[in-house]
Amino acid sequence: MTLINENYLKLQGSYLFAEIARRVKIFKEENPTAEVISLGIGDVTQPLAPVVIDALHKAVEDMASAETFRGYGPEQGYDFLREAIVNTIYKARNTDIAADEIFVSDGAKSDCGNIQEIFGSDNVIAITDPVYPVYLDTNVMAGRTGEYIADKGIFENVVYMPCTAQNNFLPQKPTQHVDMIYICCPNNPTGTTMTKDQLAQWVKYAKENNAVLLYDAAYSYFITEDDVPRTIYEIEGARDVAIEFRSFSKTAGFTGMRCGYTVVPKTVMGYTKSGEKQALNPLWNRRHTTKFNGTAYIVQRAAEAVLSAEGQKQIQATIDYYMNNAKIIRQGLSDAGIEYFGGVNAPYIWLKAPNGMKSWEFFDLLLTKAHIVGTPGAGFGPSGEGYFRLTAFGDTANTLKAVERIKTNLNF
Amino acid sequence: MTLINENYLKLQGSYLFAEIARRVKIFKEENPTAEVISLGIGDVTQPLAPVVIDALHKAVEDMASAETFRGYGPEQGYDFLREAIVNTIYKARNTDIAADEIFVSDGAKSDCGNIQEIFGSDNVIAITDPVYPVYLDTNVMAGRTGEYIADKGIFENVVYMPCTAQNNFLPQKPTQHVDMIYICCPNNPTGTTMTKDQLAQWVKYAKENNAVLLYDAAYSYFITEDDVPRTIYEIEGARDVAIEFRSFSKTAGFTGMRCGYTVVPKTVMGYTKSGEKQALNPLWNRRHTTKFNGTAYIVQRAAEAVLSAEGQKQIQATIDYYMNNAKIIRQGLSDAGIEYFGGVNAPYIWLKAPNGMKSWEFFDLLLTKAHIVGTPGAGFGPSGEGYFRLTAFGDTANTLKAVERIKTNLNF
Repeated sequence: MTLINENYLKLQGSYLFAEIARRVKIFKEENPTAEVISLGIGDVTQPLAPVVIDALHKAVEDMASAETFRGYGPEQGYDFLREAIVNTIYKARNTDIAADEIFVSDGAKSDCGNIQEIFGSDNVIAITDPVYPVYLDTNVMAGRTGEYIADKGIFENVVYMPCTAQNNFLPQKPTQHVDMIYICCPNNPTGTTMTKDQLAQWVKYAKENNAVLLYDAAYSYFITEDDVPRTIYEIEGARDVAIEFRSFSKTAGFTGMRCGYTVVPKTVMGYTKSGEKQALNPLWNRRHTTKFNGTAYIVQRAAEAVLSAEGQKQIQATIDYYMNNAKIIRQGLSDAGIEYFGGVNAPYIWLKAPNGMKSWEFFDLLLTKAHIVGTPGAGFGPSGEGYFRLTAFGDTANTLKAVERIKTNLNF
Repeated sequence: MTLINENYLKLQGSYLFAEIARRVKIFKEENPTAEVISLGIGDVTQPLAPVVIDALHKAVEDMASAETFRGYGPEQGYDFLREAIVNTIYKARNTDIAADEIFVSDGAKSDCGNIQEIFGSDNVIAITDPVYPVYLDTNVMAGRTGEYIADKGIFENVVYMPCTAQNNFLPQKPTQHVDMIYICCPNNPTGTTMTKDQLAQWVKYAKENNAVLLYDAAYSYFITEDDVPRTIYEIEGARDVAIEFRSFSKTAGFTGMRCGYTVVPKTVMGYTKSGEKQALNPLWNRRHTTKFNGTAYIVQRAAEAVLSAEGQKQIQATIDYYMNNAKIIRQGLSDAGIEYFGGVNAPYIWLKAPNGMKSWEFFDLLLTKAHIVGTPGAGFGPSGEGYFRLTAFGDTANTLKAVERIKTNLNF
């Protein structure tokens, strides 16, 4: 009798986006002339940069003749890309990361989900709350959590670190021992960040507690303030305790291209049950080469183009475009008397639903009064209740229109 | 203290290709004028088909403007590709597979490696021996095996099904109960296949034993004989017990493009420990959507082109080219008095090392006498000892030259 992995049965349905779609559909049926604008888009809308398009056409031509054709590449990524990452991302920030500590993949979602496989099943995980759901769900699937407690909206045996306006969205150090600490900075969904000093506290904590930091830096290109680290390796000692996930998705419009990478410094250690040290880099290398066969050559050439000097200029223009949308949204919310966070170092604006409204109440209000769709914060964890996420990935004309509607119809 | 997954420490080093490279390097240093030809290539060498190149350029242009840009797609694959697969692969063979039973991925290696995650950790796995090492290694990593027994070259708690000339490379039904049965057909490395009747016996066995067949059909486009099924779903009842893995890699030269797919019929069931039935399709869907974010849009358009009528014609021409190489190798081995198998329905020729030689002895003989590199069969499992793999993926001129050398220098 073939047994299934029963941990999957603990997972909750991916209710959030299905429920949003359902409510929008009903609203549109009842209000067929209403022009609904989405400020809930979690996907980029602007096309690939011209240098990337050129690199792709060129790489496609490489595949058209036997002399330049590329079959299997190194599972960890081509040297041309790993070295471009070292130079453009790490050397540029004076951080010490080598090419063989970089593992190119089909995206940060895969890496964030797969990384837990190299760890022991008895480790305790800690996640900020609210947060991107992949960290938690993949640990549920691997059996590293207990059952779901429906009335609290949490899983047993998981340390949730609430991040709300009360603590300035800064996770508090856990009072119990934890082993694997997931940090998303800039945070999805709150759009908030940590300063160098604040992040240094976490590196210190990980060192003192023999814990590992799993640091998701997918949004680092959206950081505008000087004191916010672009990579965790700007923090002294991070090389000994942190794995970093990065992505071309939001950085360069690669959500449909699929390319990311994970940095596992050779100095990050785990332990066997008997207490022997084991470097994590060879474990991840083994996982990556056994269960993955490399990212498409043409996609790696596209990523290389992103990292060129001209590529960096071109993607910055698109990021500026999105961050201008973020500014428009922030200004509009201020004018409407709605408290918000984020939107300065991230494409996400996290607003506090006024008058103690719950997330879904505000969703309905925004949809019916302003014909705007956003994302209820409660969908990202129990501490997201009462909050609401707007994103800067739409086009500017629609963003301006949406903000006008908020100011006109939702003054508080 | 962050614990590691200690199952990784049970894995054996990927010794095979490193050792081949080491011996070739020494030979070349000692014989700088020798022209070494590789018949060990496991990768394609011919370029992508013209229709695929056209589709890629067109898809790249889609990514260049906001109107046609594609961001996140459905994790399971775009409908245009899932439907093309249904029509070209399954309806064409009169098999009943629906689009929502198909999961597009970045390749069959990932899928073959990841599939075990949806199964219980107490299941017993069965693998043919010799075989592609990913099935076994990923189960070792997941803790579904015991320790490695070095003197036997096997892992505890795994049922090995020897496939040798003695049993015509047909795996015998296990005498103990097994839950997850991996079958690679056409087989890598032996190049042998099963007829419909022989495969039907496995479907029957799986039904009677509540087991699941994990059927790797990555080489099915190389089948030339009528009685060998192109998909396991040609066998009556397979929809209830079999998951099928397929790939564009060898089929269409996509080893550097990365696209495959897995078919999980909604009628394939697993069980909870308490005996309740659970369909595997929603479990795989959950795994795929949580730990993967879809295959690149441009790659999916390329795969769609492969499945078009013109695409099928063009890839067949390349497959014919490789299979002509296979024929040349087979003829040469016959002439040299070397017994071989495979090479008729697969790009692999599996030869029996003459005079009771061991695999590595024959490797050294072939290299030193004929300056040809191949792959020792012992690297694919204990029952591969004494065998040797040659592949048809080289170019024809070199293949002809290699065969002449074998006939001249290695007559038995």
